[in-house]
Amino acid sequence: MNTELEQVLPAQIEKRSFEIITEELGKRKFIPGTETIIKRCIHTSADFDYAENLVFSDNVVEKALCAIQGGASIVTDTQMAKAGINKKKLAQFGGEVYCFMPDGDVAEAACEKKITRAAACMDKAAELHGNLIFAVGNAPTALARLYELIKEGKVAPKLIIGVPVGFVNVEPSKELILKLENIPFIVAKGRKGGSNIAACICNALLYML
Amino acid sequence: MNTELEQVLPAQIEKRSFEIITEELGKRKFIPGTETIIKRCIHTSADFDYAENLVFSDNVVEKALCAIQGGASIVTDTQMAKAGINKKKLAQFGGEVYCFMPDGDVAEAACEKKITRAAACMDKAAELHGNLIFAVGNAPTALARLYELIKEGKVAPKLIIGVPVGFVNVEPSKELILKLENIPFIVAKGRKGGSNIAACICNALLYML
Repeated sequence: MNTELEQVLPAQIEKRSFEIITEELGKRKFIPGTETIIKRCIHTSADFDYAENLVFSDNVVEKALCAIQGGASIVTDTQMAKAGINKKKLAQFGGEVYCFMPDGDVAEAACEKKITRAAACMDKAAELHGNLIFAVGNAPTALARLYELIKEGKVAPKLIIGVPVGFVNVEPSKELILKLENIPFIVAKGRKGGSNIAACICNALLYML
Repeated sequence: MNTELEQVLPAQIEKRSFEIITEELGKRKFIPGTETIIKRCIHTSADFDYAENLVFSDNVVEKALCAIQGGASIVTDTQMAKAGINKKKLAQFGGEVYCFMPDGDVAEAACEKKITRAAACMDKAAELHGNLIFAVGNAPTALARLYELIKEGKVAPKLIIGVPVGFVNVEPSKELILKLENIPFIVAKGRKGGSNIAACICNALLYML
């Protein structure tokens, strides 16, 4: 461990961080386009497990960048992820970020249907017009509900970022998304993920544009 | 790995998660009062490293709860942490959450002084009246500046949650806080932490009240 404060100019901190991450990853080979996403997740968490657990569907980065450039909006399941996503950058392409978690109608629907608020948020999102990217960083129930909505033909996401975190139903919910054909996805296999990781993957994509 | 979705009522998910975490932690002993904070950090990240890396100053939990009950406000270095902290619960005791990162005067001061915006936020926070808790989840420069402000007698936090994440100056900045006497702290040693962990520790404390 380095116990001395290094003299690094503010603008150089991120660059230096990515150099350290690159050094520590060594000679690992990445699927083209995925490298900066993996490195940004490690940068956000200091957790090198993200070099192993991220699963990318075929050509997902290219497809995701086209969706963003086409004005897709992002739906997320937490206010924290919404706070973390670079909304100014997304707005340059015409997209915005939605999180319906605090909405009264969502709370009411969740209560009536005996589902989580996160799942009820997905139902509300399915009624939006325009192209959508789903970034799920917290609730496996949101991901499982999203899978059902896709199967019912009610929504066709341009991208699913499936990175809920935790211990109950998290892994099975991610397995559902990994089974999808024709829907691009980025999924963190296993228990790990989080609203920080969801926001970070959105931003990694935005910063490629 | 469990690949079947378990039938768990929404209200039971968190309870079941904590049961799984408790099982996996086994017979580990914790300093009284710290256990729910450690478990909530694991719940937020699915990362059991938080069972090892959190350092608590003497009687910090008791002191933190008294500070919150006395109406202390929370200063944080990211909008994500601000979004994640339970502001309604904090407001019951009279506190609020401040994040100065988007402020124009902070950007200007950072530019003039050639410091990070996060460090300039700490300068602005030092001018607040009333008792303060600092929750630093992102920028080591914020933590290092906070240390200087304490040494200069310009601020006396009731609690420092020192959990910036990353690769440049993160560990040395945490070591500074660990050296403080008379200032209660909760620090995640090493590179790990994040705005999610900062918010999670604030909420773990709030939920004890």
